[in-house]
Amino acid sequence: MKFKNRITELFGIEYPIVSGGMVWVSGWKLAAAVSNAGGLGLIGAGSMKPDLLREHIRKIKAATTRPWGVNLPLMRADVEELLTVIADEGVAILFTSSGSPAMFTPRLKEKGMVVVHVVAAVKHARKAESAGVDAVVAEGFEAGGHNGLDEITTLALVPQVADAVRIPVIAAGGIADGRQMFAALALGAEGVQIGTAFAATVESSASERYKQAVVDAQDGATVLAFRKLSPLRVLKTPFALRAMQEEAAGKSKEELRELNGKGRERLGIFDGDWEEGEFEMGQSSGLVKGVLPAADVVANVVCGYEQARDRIADNT
Amino acid sequence: MKFKNRITELFGIEYPIVSGGMVWVSGWKLAAAVSNAGGLGLIGAGSMKPDLLREHIRKIKAATTRPWGVNLPLMRADVEELLTVIADEGVAILFTSSGSPAMFTPRLKEKGMVVVHVVAAVKHARKAESAGVDAVVAEGFEAGGHNGLDEITTLALVPQVADAVRIPVIAAGGIADGRQMFAALALGAEGVQIGTAFAATVESSASERYKQAVVDAQDGATVLAFRKLSPLRVLKTPFALRAMQEEAAGKSKEELRELNGKGRERLGIFDGDWEEGEFEMGQSSGLVKGVLPAADVVANVVCGYEQARDRIADNT
Repeated sequence: MKFKNRITELFGIEYPIVSGGMVWVSGWKLAAAVSNAGGLGLIGAGSMKPDLLREHIRKIKAATTRPWGVNLPLMRADVEELLTVIADEGVAILFTSSGSPAMFTPRLKEKGMVVVHVVAAVKHARKAESAGVDAVVAEGFEAGGHNGLDEITTLALVPQVADAVRIPVIAAGGIADGRQMFAALALGAEGVQIGTAFAATVESSASERYKQAVVDAQDGATVLAFRKLSPLRVLKTPFALRAMQEEAAGKSKEELRELNGKGRERLGIFDGDWEEGEFEMGQSSGLVKGVLPAADVVANVVCGYEQARDRIADNT
Repeated sequence: MKFKNRITELFGIEYPIVSGGMVWVSGWKLAAAVSNAGGLGLIGAGSMKPDLLREHIRKIKAATTRPWGVNLPLMRADVEELLTVIADEGVAILFTSSGSPAMFTPRLKEKGMVVVHVVAAVKHARKAESAGVDAVVAEGFEAGGHNGLDEITTLALVPQVADAVRIPVIAAGGIADGRQMFAALALGAEGVQIGTAFAATVESSASERYKQAVVDAQDGATVLAFRKLSPLRVLKTPFALRAMQEEAAGKSKEELRELNGKGRERLGIFDGDWEEGEFEMGQSSGLVKGVLPAADVVANVVCGYEQARDRIADNT
């Protein structure tokens, strides 16, 4: 089926399906596979030093002629070096997350980039629109990884953001299949960003242990940990359960920061360390049933969208 | 528009819209208004003693000839007395929540009742189906009031429950408008249960202070409090903020139970005590813009459903 709305037009893509720019997951291979399948693949700069980001950008240029983008967390200490790489390499589409869109968007727009900012509350969507972004990703509480403070779910957030801004909205959080994409568009979004389902694909950089953990996860398998620090949705692994216990015991921010230490995202997602790593994934993991090529995920989502459209007619 | 699916057939109603059986909110007036508007109104027995429940049942019989039902939390100490009233009065439709459907459903089915159980996780949906219920309400984390332990959102929960059971599913949690109802049906539900939007109607028994608080609430206005005790979604009132502080400080179950005391639901919802009461409401409160008659809420939801159906066609 064919899609045509402001998101497909903005990016020049066939399907309004974006793969999240996930740390230790979204390298050039996954992004290129999604873009070649008609979606928008994002390279996740969050876990890359500037030189590595440059390498991934050069590789994706060789791997696809379709549109692709980069996701950059603006809170990075070396954000300026990363932005220099992004500008040097002529990246056309940039998704920014965390940090202030007001501080960065005007510079990025001057360079002619399409800029999209990720938000988790209506007030941040309004701020991003004022800063001049082209679209927002409205990401709900069910999303894997870093999460908003107000715990607003995708079903509640997307219509409220769609009512509040005039720019197009991409729904994210908990979305793995086509009936959910259909639901997201019904809520007022014009596209979806899918994370976990792409993290478990063949082309994802995640470890096999991580991918299998996504496939094995049931509906209640994840938890929002480190609420006091910076909320993070992870699988209930031994480390996550320990962290939850410490939080419940009233440990301070500082104690939790020390417990968390450094490098647990890599340890879990990339190295597959079950005991000590963080396995970031969303509540949609319960819907992921196998490790597929990314192109199959895109095709299944489009197919599920059509089925939902047909099925909903059965109710009337 | 006309609906015809397993939920409209099961209850004999025009629109597959159920009003939640909410404590201190859902008396005969609200339930009759929803039923007379073509939905299914529920009397909330959770805040009623047996004699009061009998009175409400007798009043709704005089107020509508359409189908209506009762919601009963099975954990009530006086559940047997309440069930005697329900059986004596010939209640035809019973929604049960909390407690064990296996213990109660066979008896209720023997009396010829239609029985629906509220669940917040896939495993509980399977158990309810095995116990013989006619349908389940799959209620997500964004719902007001008492909430599941696994914090699964409506968008993630409904498709997983729909995949797991053969009986029809009613989606609940975060739903206040027609585009969300359309989304819920796309996810595989065949009906919706709406709470907060009906709690703020003219016919609701809640205090005016409570209704105005729903109207004033923004997207991030609520919080899931008492996670250690029994998770409860409430507005961030002064008492709720105090409770959150105590939880963050690591207070024990016992200390939190003492802090909570008794009667705060009534104090907030029914008496409108801003400082000391609990204002239970869902994340959909951000979508509620005024205090309307319940029939207008039903009509608006149906109208919004049609608009969503038409708008989604614009994406292709």
